[in-house]
Amino acid sequence: MRLMRVGRAGAEIPAVYAGKDQYIDVSDLVEDFDAAFFEAGGSALLADPVAERLAAGASRPLAGQRVGAPVARPHQILCIGLNYTDHAQATGQSLPEEPVLATKAPNTLTGPEDPLVLPRGSTRTDWEVELGVVVGRRVSYLPDERAAEEAIAGYVLVNDVTERFLQFERGGQWSKGKSAATFNPCGPYLVTRDELPDVSDVGLWLEVNGQRRQHGSTRNMVFSPAHLVYYLSQFMVLEPGDLINTGTPAGTGMSSDPPSYLAPGDVVELGGDPLGTQRHTVVASP
Amino acid sequence: MRLMRVGRAGAEIPAVYAGKDQYIDVSDLVEDFDAAFFEAGGSALLADPVAERLAAGASRPLAGQRVGAPVARPHQILCIGLNYTDHAQATGQSLPEEPVLATKAPNTLTGPEDPLVLPRGSTRTDWEVELGVVVGRRVSYLPDERAAEEAIAGYVLVNDVTERFLQFERGGQWSKGKSAATFNPCGPYLVTRDELPDVSDVGLWLEVNGQRRQHGSTRNMVFSPAHLVYYLSQFMVLEPGDLINTGTPAGTGMSSDPPSYLAPGDVVELGGDPLGTQRHTVVASP
Repeated sequence: MRLMRVGRAGAEIPAVYAGKDQYIDVSDLVEDFDAAFFEAGGSALLADPVAERLAAGASRPLAGQRVGAPVARPHQILCIGLNYTDHAQATGQSLPEEPVLATKAPNTLTGPEDPLVLPRGSTRTDWEVELGVVVGRRVSYLPDERAAEEAIAGYVLVNDVTERFLQFERGGQWSKGKSAATFNPCGPYLVTRDELPDVSDVGLWLEVNGQRRQHGSTRNMVFSPAHLVYYLSQFMVLEPGDLINTGTPAGTGMSSDPPSYLAPGDVVELGGDPLGTQRHTVVASP
Repeated sequence: MRLMRVGRAGAEIPAVYAGKDQYIDVSDLVEDFDAAFFEAGGSALLADPVAERLAAGASRPLAGQRVGAPVARPHQILCIGLNYTDHAQATGQSLPEEPVLATKAPNTLTGPEDPLVLPRGSTRTDWEVELGVVVGRRVSYLPDERAAEEAIAGYVLVNDVTERFLQFERGGQWSKGKSAATFNPCGPYLVTRDELPDVSDVGLWLEVNGQRRQHGSTRNMVFSPAHLVYYLSQFMVLEPGDLINTGTPAGTGMSSDPPSYLAPGDVVELGGDPLGTQRHTVVASP
């Protein structure tokens, strides 16, 4: 199943993608795709009614509708650094012995076509196409990767936008460069785990103004999504709906030669094979 | 006004401290002390009805009641590092040029008397008594410290518990050592800003098993609460209810000679002049 949220920012309704740019409204069945939804069983709750509505031809066109992030604002957004062999190579860094963790303010979450707003004074705002993992249960100290996999609700496409100057030159931790408003475009849909049982070779690409900048595959990941969920659960309690940005392949602006960053007017497009595509226009801070 | 939340974990009701270990139930007036409450105006909404109830003798005894954290789970918990001149000196580090930021999983929030659970395998779980700032409005790019001060709802006592091995030796960012369950005891109450207009000399102390370990004052802060709110708002949008742990004075376990850390059975007590006191027993991970 592919879960979506449709409508203006802050007032999205939960929906299910029906194929061919159509959606099924499920707002009478669930309040939102939030912690309570995932905790109660998630998409399994929707299977029968959605099948009935599909059969009855109850789908509506997405055309003209804003699409929001496919999950409500999560309890936390966790970001994994240096998780692709090609990216680590391109940035001249050795592979981490264990996952590198940074965090992002949860209110950075936006929809897949929303504008990307540069922070004031930004000089090095960079892109990172990534596979995002949405946690499906409250878990802690998971025993192994198998249990971790069962705790995954599904996968999303994210752009883990990062301002490199704020990340590296303003003292301390990376979250300063990852937490500006609009810095976590997400969606268009959450692909549930049963629809994507093998995430070991998901293609990921990103273009700026039509020029291909990133082109990778999750087969170059250092730590798999299941390993990341297992690993993180040793340090903290993961909540249903929590989002994990699992790291980016080679081709960020920072690792380009010469380095290149986003400017107002740029158009960023990205995609991941079954995860859909995003397109955002870069705008200056108001 | 002093806001409290009373009742079993996850089912606390909002209340106002009435002095002499009594409280006024306000759960019929507001749902919780959460983002919606602060956004709607916060404690000002409660002034008249609470005065009426006090006059009518409607207060109840706290004895036998569990006290929760005085705010609902925040959108984010931000932690400032190295923010006391005495702490920086004691740990041999130079003063930061700008605030050092780390983050903590929001679900670490617990009440002031709840047990403190050591993470599995913990060898260096440490204490940090701190003044916590609760944000009162949605703010971004605040123009100055004066505007920042007006965005503060009030102050709380926190223990910014940190596992030093996980913080420093497990790769990357500090949040790995700050995010274990029960790692952010908070309360007993939120003291609203009008009751504590001057936070430049709040005494803070912490004892382990009756032995004084920390004894400081916010007058040794490098960056004031208003400066921190102003500063953080340049990097991210702060939400009403967000919690900022503003750093700890000298006397952590890590900076003791020899270093000393918490073990099951230890009793940690802490206080901050008008902010009340906490007492937690340290227990092993289940």
